[in-house]
Amino acid sequence: MDAPTEQQQQQPAQLSSGNDREAFRQTLWNTLLRRSFYLPSFKIYGGVSGFYDYGPPGFALKNNILKFWREHFVYEEHMLEIECPSVTPEAVLKASGHVDKFTDLMVKDDKTGTCFRADHLLRDYCNDKLEKDHLTISAEQASELKNVLALLEDLSCQELGLKIKEYGITAPHTKNPLSDPYPFNLMFQTSIGPSGQSPGYMRPETAQGIFVNFRDLYYYNGKKLPFAAAQVGQAFRNEISPRQGPLRVREFTLAEIEHFVDPENKSHPKFSNVAELEFLMFPREAQLSGQSAKKICLGEAVAKGTINNETLGYFIGRVYLFLTKIGIDKNRLRFRQHLANEMAHYAADCWDAEIEASYGWIECVGIADRSAYDLQAHSEKSGVALVAEEKFAEPKEVEQLVITPVKKDLGIAFKGDHKKVVESLEAMNEQEAMAMKATLESKREVEFYVCTLGKNVTIKKNMVSISKERTKVHQRVFTPSVIEPSFGIGRIMYCLSEHSFSTRPGKAGDEQLGLLSFSPLVAPMKCMVFPLVQNQQFEEGAKVISESLTSIRISHKIDMTGTSIGKRYARSDELGVPFAITVDSDTSVTIRERDSKDQVRVSLKEAASVLSSVAEGKMTWQDVWASFPHHSSE
Amino acid sequence: MDAPTEQQQQQPAQLSSGNDREAFRQTLWNTLLRRSFYLPSFKIYGGVSGFYDYGPPGFALKNNILKFWREHFVYEEHMLEIECPSVTPEAVLKASGHVDKFTDLMVKDDKTGTCFRADHLLRDYCNDKLEKDHLTISAEQASELKNVLALLEDLSCQELGLKIKEYGITAPHTKNPLSDPYPFNLMFQTSIGPSGQSPGYMRPETAQGIFVNFRDLYYYNGKKLPFAAAQVGQAFRNEISPRQGPLRVREFTLAEIEHFVDPENKSHPKFSNVAELEFLMFPREAQLSGQSAKKICLGEAVAKGTINNETLGYFIGRVYLFLTKIGIDKNRLRFRQHLANEMAHYAADCWDAEIEASYGWIECVGIADRSAYDLQAHSEKSGVALVAEEKFAEPKEVEQLVITPVKKDLGIAFKGDHKKVVESLEAMNEQEAMAMKATLESKREVEFYVCTLGKNVTIKKNMVSISKERTKVHQRVFTPSVIEPSFGIGRIMYCLSEHSFSTRPGKAGDEQLGLLSFSPLVAPMKCMVFPLVQNQQFEEGAKVISESLTSIRISHKIDMTGTSIGKRYARSDELGVPFAITVDSDTSVTIRERDSKDQVRVSLKEAASVLSSVAEGKMTWQDVWASFPHHSSE
Repeated sequence: MDAPTEQQQQQPAQLSSGNDREAFRQTLWNTLLRRSFYLPSFKIYGGVSGFYDYGPPGFALKNNILKFWREHFVYEEHMLEIECPSVTPEAVLKASGHVDKFTDLMVKDDKTGTCFRADHLLRDYCNDKLEKDHLTISAEQASELKNVLALLEDLSCQELGLKIKEYGITAPHTKNPLSDPYPFNLMFQTSIGPSGQSPGYMRPETAQGIFVNFRDLYYYNGKKLPFAAAQVGQAFRNEISPRQGPLRVREFTLAEIEHFVDPENKSHPKFSNVAELEFLMFPREAQLSGQSAKKICLGEAVAKGTINNETLGYFIGRVYLFLTKIGIDKNRLRFRQHLANEMAHYAADCWDAEIEASYGWIECVGIADRSAYDLQAHSEKSGVALVAEEKFAEPKEVEQLVITPVKKDLGIAFKGDHKKVVESLEAMNEQEAMAMKATLESKREVEFYVCTLGKNVTIKKNMVSISKERTKVHQRVFTPSVIEPSFGIGRIMYCLSEHSFSTRPGKAGDEQLGLLSFSPLVAPMKCMVFPLVQNQQFEEGAKVISESLTSIRISHKIDMTGTSIGKRYARSDELGVPFAITVDSDTSVTIRERDSKDQVRVSLKEAASVLSSVAEGKMTWQDVWASFPHHSSE
Repeated sequence: MDAPTEQQQQQPAQLSSGNDREAFRQTLWNTLLRRSFYLPSFKIYGGVSGFYDYGPPGFALKNNILKFWREHFVYEEHMLEIECPSVTPEAVLKASGHVDKFTDLMVKDDKTGTCFRADHLLRDYCNDKLEKDHLTISAEQASELKNVLALLEDLSCQELGLKIKEYGITAPHTKNPLSDPYPFNLMFQTSIGPSGQSPGYMRPETAQGIFVNFRDLYYYNGKKLPFAAAQVGQAFRNEISPRQGPLRVREFTLAEIEHFVDPENKSHPKFSNVAELEFLMFPREAQLSGQSAKKICLGEAVAKGTINNETLGYFIGRVYLFLTKIGIDKNRLRFRQHLANEMAHYAADCWDAEIEASYGWIECVGIADRSAYDLQAHSEKSGVALVAEEKFAEPKEVEQLVITPVKKDLGIAFKGDHKKVVESLEAMNEQEAMAMKATLESKREVEFYVCTLGKNVTIKKNMVSISKERTKVHQRVFTPSVIEPSFGIGRIMYCLSEHSFSTRPGKAGDEQLGLLSFSPLVAPMKCMVFPLVQNQQFEEGAKVISESLTSIRISHKIDMTGTSIGKRYARSDELGVPFAITVDSDTSVTIRERDSKDQVRVSLKEAASVLSSVAEGKMTWQDVWASFPHHSSE
């Protein structure tokens, strides 16, 4: 996963005004904290921003999402799941580009030394100005501010610095002057071993662990392509000043897939399984022409080339199914294609699954065709070939380019530089070489740029021979392309909470009760077990049911407190538990469904098995409602 | 989990000579590497010692062990599972003692700067001397060397340094002189945020995350004791020079349970479920008197006080069941009680589950009654009370100690020091206070040591009033004790591989084939699916079976290669896959059991469901063998 972009910040939420969004978010967040879904990490020591613990229901929710992720992706596609350490030596992250480029631009308060993200200060300034001073600024000024916002991600370090100076932006709170912006590397740095000589970093993504193991995984897979490897684990990002609660944290769980494929054949045998899906897509052209996301059929998007290839399309479809199956609202989910300026130069195509939340559209999954970039980078730096082979059934006769630099003549002409000239000549591709051959034949010499020397040299006809020769080859050796779906599990989980949350009036009428409508697939527990009141007979019944549920691995909690049954239902609704069994006699119980609040009466003996059927999807609640006598608690 | 001790190093393995052990280990390790259970991390960059990746079968094995761990402990006991970050601020690890005490003693090669563990060099020297020079050294010298080995863990930094000097130990390989030993902190250090002002560490254990959350977890549990919280996650230990392959690594997975209990009532309601278990225990007394581990009944061990209390005993029993159920040989598993010198001063009792492997007895699980130490340490440093309450049904009249320092008189007598005197007086326990009262009444003054002043002061009768008063109290407030079972998952997994590995002759007779007899519960895959030969009909059948298995979530792999069926069985045996389905007709298949190599014939339609029954323990292989026609591949 690349560094998450800030694109979502600029998109207004569709559903409600800013105040409503803020109030909704606050109510939800209070509920999530009160019910221990999240616990601010190290709270008794005052906490550290950018870190959250998952409390019991939060962990269970996250674990259920991951369990389904593994079923939906890893088991379904027979992916090779591996696990690598988080501590990573410098060489790996140097090759991947993280040591040099995984940075944010930072400014410091000149007096207190407090650090800020330069782009955030500029963004806040522009937004503030547009919002609060919209009556006093000119149309020209407004358009300039909007333009800055649109280009925010493309501003260089120097440009950012100039804008901050131009607008006279100072440090928040203190109003002190700010330093010039400078890049701050976002990796947590450490040192491996006692010598202090081996720098290491906490990995910023799990993907690199897969790339460096490509050769072993390819062998493990019987040297067959395509195949996918997967890894779930912690990743780290030492944010400058984390905000946005659980969405921008310094340690988070990524689930990443690297699907290796022949660059000459990116078809996918199972694409037809998803081709008919229709959902919100936001292609590059629609964004540039100011349109909004539209429902598009996946098969068409691939056929028309909107999505680069079938394999990329297949994963986009599978991600759509995954997110909607766990409960993401399909009307608040869109697949947005990266604009040219967002995409790395090597990427063939990139789409983000963005989920609309109160913070705007949040990038939760990135699905990128990264071409051969990562494997090539590690091949180059490690000296180990990370390639695949296609053995031909019969040897093929092919024309091969042969470039033979005449080292003696080059040595005389370029002396100490001649090695670099030789290497540059040998590295020409077919087009370059054939052009040189033509020029040499017509003009007997040619100007040639040697990038390692940083200058042109003159190559004469005697210095190199270029030809095409027919030879028999038995196999093709190539660097596979990689299609990478990368999931920010914490972001998905938080957005799911937003899509699942609502409030409804309590019995008293003067209070609003929280409700988290998680599906049984991911709910932290499938069921609560309540004795109606504290008495031995009901408590015995509750224990018997709890033991049956434990033996068939249905997660549940037994609540023996004397609290009124209404309050216990309300607590259970806030925890997102889909069902409650209440023991109110020594022969039968009620089963209550959370969202409808409907109840049926079931015999004590059958209770656990009915519950397991409906919790595991073998029966729907409608089936249960149709099969058992209804119960009214009024 | 405390720092693992080196105790196991000194215990000879019972089963075989050193050479046999070495050869066995090498054969197993070659198999585990060849089959990608482990991959040396960052291999293409030359690797970094102390780091291993789990390749696909290794990850699956580990994941299955964890899945069963969660069922056996977390779900069975309704534990509160949480997840905290690995990056931890200094305050937490200062309070836990890790910043000051999580160290190993290190020496450096004076010329090259290479670092070594001081105790390892001394140990290797003594062992070498005893082994290689046993003919030339005197009985006295031998006994001195043995004595050093026995006391190795108790040697102070200075004592270690003196021994190294006395024996003239030099740096391995270079033979250069060594520096004096000095403590090296084993935590990976980093910095949180961009300022460089907030030191952080990669957690050395997961337990602290639970302790600092005690208050929220106690509330979540409805303020009821006992309850247990659990956490599974990565822990880090920046070893000085890691050896012993996968047993001593710098990043590893811990699964830790913190069971909070009233210190006045450590009984356990489910103890009777495990009381009759009998297994190898190695109590302190047996170790000191030179006996070996003996089978003891768990109920008796608790009744006799060998094991400190029922709750500790309950977890020891549950750990025994867990380890033997995943396949650890009960004859190579013992529970060893910590000697007084191994145990922290605050611990009430500690037992290690040790598994015998080719390296000796390996500490894989620690089960400790840590008393109130951890909660008290964090209470003290954070200023947040981490306590539980017992509400009395009726208020109790109790005698309470009341110490009232007379501040005015103390101020006159001790001026600037008087605050420290006041605090020391107030901190007296009942015994100290009543002794002071008696002395003051008889002699009118008393010498009193004020530890914050580091000296005695004279307290006169007018300076303090001490009395016992009867008051009504409605509740008891106390710091819970914590019983901590802490599992090193990687160590358990490696030891399980040793207990599961054997070789048997291949058909050719001149080769030994590896066999990993993992039970279906933890095996990396439940089943392989093979078309007997490469033809469309058999391959179609294999695909149909694979799809059925996928739909019922039976992990498997389909192998379409043209390799001979014998070779494919051999590969499957080396991967520890318990069953193989071979499609050799268009109506029926054979199912082969790995350990017996027995095969039955089953219809193609039934194959997936029979496999799922036997893989999930609903049927035994004996049942299958009795129900279906036998097949011989001869």
